Amino acid sequence: MNIQFNPDREFDLIAIGRACIDLNAVEYNRPMEETMTFKKYVGGSPANIAIGSSKLGLKAGFIGKLADDQHGRFIEQYMRSLGVDTSNMVVDEEGHKTGLAFTEIKSPEECSILMYRDDVADLYLEPSEVSEDYIKKAKVLLVSGTALAKSPSREAVLKAVQLAGKNDVKVIFELDYRGYTWQSLEETSVYYTLVAQQSDVVVGTRDEFDVMENVAEGNNEATIKHLFNYSPELVVIKHGVEGSYAYTRNGETFRGQAYLTKVLKTFGAGDSYASAFLYALISGKGIETALKYGSASAAIVVSKHSSSEAMPTVAEIEQLIAERTETADQLR
Amino acid sequence: MNIQFNPDREFDLIAIGRACIDLNAVEYNRPMEETMTFKKYVGGSPANIAIGSSKLGLKAGFIGKLADDQHGRFIEQYMRSLGVDTSNMVVDEEGHKTGLAFTEIKSPEECSILMYRDDVADLYLEPSEVSEDYIKKAKVLLVSGTALAKSPSREAVLKAVQLAGKNDVKVIFELDYRGYTWQSLEETSVYYTLVAQQSDVVVGTRDEFDVMENVAEGNNEATIKHLFNYSPELVVIKHGVEGSYAYTRNGETFRGQAYLTKVLKTFGAGDSYASAFLYALISGKGIETALKYGSASAAIVVSKHSSSEAMPTVAEIEQLIAERTETADQLR
Amino acid sequence: MNIQFNPDREFDLIAIGRACIDLNAVEYNRPMEETMTFKKYVGGSPANIAIGSSKLGLKAGFIGKLADDQHGRFIEQYMRSLGVDTSNMVVDEEGHKTGLAFTEIKSPEECSILMYRDDVADLYLEPSEVSEDYIKKAKVLLVSGTALAKSPSREAVLKAVQLAGKNDVKVIFELDYRGYTWQSLEETSVYYTLVAQQSDVVVGTRDEFDVMENVAEGNNEATIKHLFNYSPELVVIKHGVEGSYAYTRNGETFRGQAYLTKVLKTFGAGDSYASAFLYALISGKGIETALKYGSASAAIVVSKHSSSEAMPTVAEIEQLIAERTETADQLR
Amino acid sequence: MNIQFNPDREFDLIAIGRACIDLNAVEYNRPMEETMTFKKYVGGSPANIAIGSSKLGLKAGFIGKLADDQHGRFIEQYMRSLGVDTSNMVVDEEGHKTGLAFTEIKSPEECSILMYRDDVADLYLEPSEVSEDYIKKAKVLLVSGTALAKSPSREAVLKAVQLAGKNDVKVIFELDYRGYTWQSLEETSVYYTLVAQQSDVVVGTRDEFDVMENVAEGNNEATIKHLFNYSPELVVIKHGVEGSYAYTRNGETFRGQAYLTKVLKTFGAGDSYASAFLYALISGKGIETALKYGSASAAIVVSKHSSSEAMPTVAEIEQLIAERTETADQLR
Repeated sequence: MNIQFNPDREFDLIAIGRACIDLNAVEYNRPMEETMTFKKYVGGSPANIAIGSSKLGLKAGFIGKLADDQHGRFIEQYMRSLGVDTSNMVVDEEGHKTGLAFTEIKSPEECSILMYRDDVADLYLEPSEVSEDYIKKAKVLLVSGTALAKSPSREAVLKAVQLAGKNDVKVIFELDYRGYTWQSLEETSVYYTLVAQQSDVVVGTRDEFDVMENVAEGNNEATIKHLFNYSPELVVIKHGVEGSYAYTRNGETFRGQAYLTKVLKTFGAGDSYASAFLYALISGKGIETALKYGSASAAIVVSKHSSSEAMPTVAEIEQLIAERTETADQLR
Repeated sequence: MNIQFNPDREFDLIAIGRACIDLNAVEYNRPMEETMTFKKYVGGSPANIAIGSSKLGLKAGFIGKLADDQHGRFIEQYMRSLGVDTSNMVVDEEGHKTGLAFTEIKSPEECSILMYRDDVADLYLEPSEVSEDYIKKAKVLLVSGTALAKSPSREAVLKAVQLAGKNDVKVIFELDYRGYTWQSLEETSVYYTLVAQQSDVVVGTRDEFDVMENVAEGNNEATIKHLFNYSPELVVIKHGVEGSYAYTRNGETFRGQAYLTKVLKTFGAGDSYASAFLYALISGKGIETALKYGSASAAIVVSKHSSSEAMPTVAEIEQLIAERTETADQLR
Repeated sequence: MNIQFNPDREFDLIAIGRACIDLNAVEYNRPMEETMTFKKYVGGSPANIAIGSSKLGLKAGFIGKLADDQHGRFIEQYMRSLGVDTSNMVVDEEGHKTGLAFTEIKSPEECSILMYRDDVADLYLEPSEVSEDYIKKAKVLLVSGTALAKSPSREAVLKAVQLAGKNDVKVIFELDYRGYTWQSLEETSVYYTLVAQQSDVVVGTRDEFDVMENVAEGNNEATIKHLFNYSPELVVIKHGVEGSYAYTRNGETFRGQAYLTKVLKTFGAGDSYASAFLYALISGKGIETALKYGSASAAIVVSKHSSSEAMPTVAEIEQLIAERTETADQLR
Repeated sequence: MNIQFNPDREFDLIAIGRACIDLNAVEYNRPMEETMTFKKYVGGSPANIAIGSSKLGLKAGFIGKLADDQHGRFIEQYMRSLGVDTSNMVVDEEGHKTGLAFTEIKSPEECSILMYRDDVADLYLEPSEVSEDYIKKAKVLLVSGTALAKSPSREAVLKAVQLAGKNDVKVIFELDYRGYTWQSLEETSVYYTLVAQQSDVVVGTRDEFDVMENVAEGNNEATIKHLFNYSPELVVIKHGVEGSYAYTRNGETFRGQAYLTKVLKTFGAGDSYASAFLYALISGKGIETALKYGSASAAIVVSKHSSSEAMPTVAEIEQLIAERTETADQLR
């Protein structure tokens, strides 16, 4: 099965949600208390996906709200410089700040993030700042779950999903669950369920689907049984190093392998996976290839220092896939 | 067309939302500054509908949150005394107060309400306090739009709607728009649209549908064209003294007349209309009769002092319909 | 010792703080759940004191913020009709409501109040709305402790106290402690101590002084030892039916008896006490007489249904004092 | 005139207020958008003063609240490593974050700070976390104005000032005005006036005294006339490059010169001034010398990259004073 995208659209993908600043530890493999220098990057899941898919050649746009300060201006300039359309990124006028993520890399296995997310500018995107004229120019609206965590950003996203439905724009929901900001698991479950039921493609880790269902250890069968009663045509469930599964509405199942790599940190894996998966899907390469692209892209990003700057090109992805396929063939 | 309700259910109707206190002017036909005494009644649209339909013989239940004080206890006792099941009305433990409505009756045409709705207990109903076991005992879940105005009550209602959908419970959405509490018309429109699309029956005034659509002067054709793309089977749009229209998914249109009456005040018209309309619908009397019941019930309540206590019996409704039909026949 | 008031002032007393609505049970000697009718009065400690002292013949003014609704207008009209200058009562423009107190009278010994104080208009008085030109027209600034419970009303009062100090206006601090609204006892203690140290006269119950000192069972000696290190000249500590003590900076102690009476409810005792005590003090009748006036006024108010409307005249107070003195003489 | 400090105290100085993180531009003389790397330092006026005076040999302690994260732990470790007693720095348990200051150095004349101060941990210090036993061990309580900007930190400081007054601890009030966090100039003026009136020494720039008085262009004469009616014995008013004035209660005036220097940035000038001024004052060197120490310390810090790490030693200060005095002598 192939997802059909409306071909007559200016943008391949418009992402909505947060665009923030990552402050990555320059001195790493130590606790953050001992890190004295931090390097600045653009971050935030939907921003990374817009950047990543733009680097892969898609025409990407972004709907979001930026702080009226140096960090906000840096984000807009950086994204624009990489080809992302920033015409619908509005500037906050109420003094809200840019979200920050200080990353701590104690070891490749022990990474953590110190987040500044209270009252940040991206959560203040208003529904009135979401334009139907803009959304209907896209093949795909990419929704990040974190943008649902608080009003008025929540309503802005819900409105965007309603407009996508009305204008034949496919909704791709990347669960992107982050515990902070949400009031309770019950609240998260309500909105995740609501948006997933109205989406065409839902992508997340098994843990994130558990959050959506508010269950302890869910299983993929129950998840797809529920979702295929509603709008979704394709559901992708990631199981970490064990690889990922893609299920289609008409009953197909695809399994994607994870590519092993020398890991520097785990940040950015999900965003690079989504960028490359969507690139392949929108380019009509089929689900099986899309799973490979996603895994290869993730493998490249976790071996590098940043999330946004490390987003690979198509050539890099294809080279990694080719190398691994060859190795696998030789091992047979 | 008749709406089919699941017959094997303990409750005809479970309402969710606010149950408050009305403080009605004892001395009226004057500005409230000159009213020195107020009489206490239970109020709030879904509470009135639960009370009204219980008085008509339906088995009704209520999901809501009450203040832990004398007003909260009065509401629970009063509703229980009239046969409403209050087992799922929970008591707030965080000091929130009961909503209040001081009514001012300057003249039958000039009525206003002084509302106390900031941080009231009913808006603090949590999604975790909505029970699937309870909801699946009902034929109908009645949702009042005001309960969507603020978190966490908003999420509690969205969860209830999801559970109704999962358990074959018909969702009846009474728009019940009140400007206070909402942040913006855009926000209202997002949630009204969301819930209307997932409901089986939507009832409101033309003005309330305009709020849902965030348009200045909408028309019924556009409204039903939109809604019948989604779940609704029946849409009832009220036009005040000009009567009301009921549209069915399969293309029927019914018109209901308003019954003229000696008006004391306008409060309570919508709730008494909804109670009697739902009673007739759930009792299988058909849409045409349901419109008459609604109009008759409203005519009775606006001629009396309270909203909840004035809710009529079936005999009173049928008597008024019979009288007016006779008069109409004589005038022919 | 006599307190010296600046004689060349237009106002005897300007009170600052809350002016609210009392909703008194019409049917009483029962739980409020069974009370169906409520009578409306002006309430709030400083408003009652302004009204009470105006009825006694003092020229009183008021600084406060009123809701822009029927209740707010009623308060202003009522106070003005009794001679209180309301030129410095400003109208709230942000939709805040009037504070409410529903009174429950189960028996003369069991009275309680159901308060609506969240975000009420009086707590939104801004420091910029406190006028130096107005305050310097007064002999006395009467400060009510409850107005310190929340910003910006807190800062408005602190500014008023600073302006009084600068302009030779005596500050009389009526502790008027109400647990709601305050965040913690520590917070209350900080501001009560701050204002008491800057006041000329401090009046409260022993329990209220314990709150000020954040101690469990304080004693009067410690209280006056502390306060006479700062500005106070006179400290009045009330011990309920055991009467009250007045201590002066130069070492005098006066004891006032409580007058027994047929009690209908306990509300309003403190405010009527303060009105009459201040009337006598400002009129130069001396502390001993002022204590009698306070007790007599309280005895009259607790035997009646309201707080504000029941405020006695000088003739009523003097008659009660005369009767009781005669009785006491006869008993000797 | 010399200020008399209680000699029998364990701590020379205990500071109360914020301890935060500065993130200083590594690449400077450019807009922050172009700065890609930031270096981490401890910051915040009272923390800098505690650190600075500890480096000068005073025994310093600190009362404050730290985030329960890597930044909070870094602050505590750094301050402790420089000899500051951190036993009364409590850890926030409600998820508040550390305040941040990203510094932008476009040129020595054009410096700005991008602040993260919303709901930061230091503003959540509770009055119950201020210990009388600790405060009474100090000669001096150093209060920073910014800690008054919001509750509950505001009440914690007001309580500390009350405890200092009760226990013969001199209160030194460093105005340290920062516009963010405060609601209005009126609010700032109320609390600055309140604390200044209760302090023994008040230090600030002329602009900061204007904020305290809520006037446009105040003058020193009016300022000291007002303050010497209350507790202050010494008032220091800084006029930037024109130097500073110290006024004593008994009528003396001292003028301090600013030492010109090669300026890298303007941050940290006030804190380094205060550290050295207080060191000299507490060491009994007299006001004239204290003014020189303050100016010399400021001159050293503005020529370096950080605020806290750059705090000079006594030898560095004395060397700079000696050099400049010599030069001045030669120029005669």
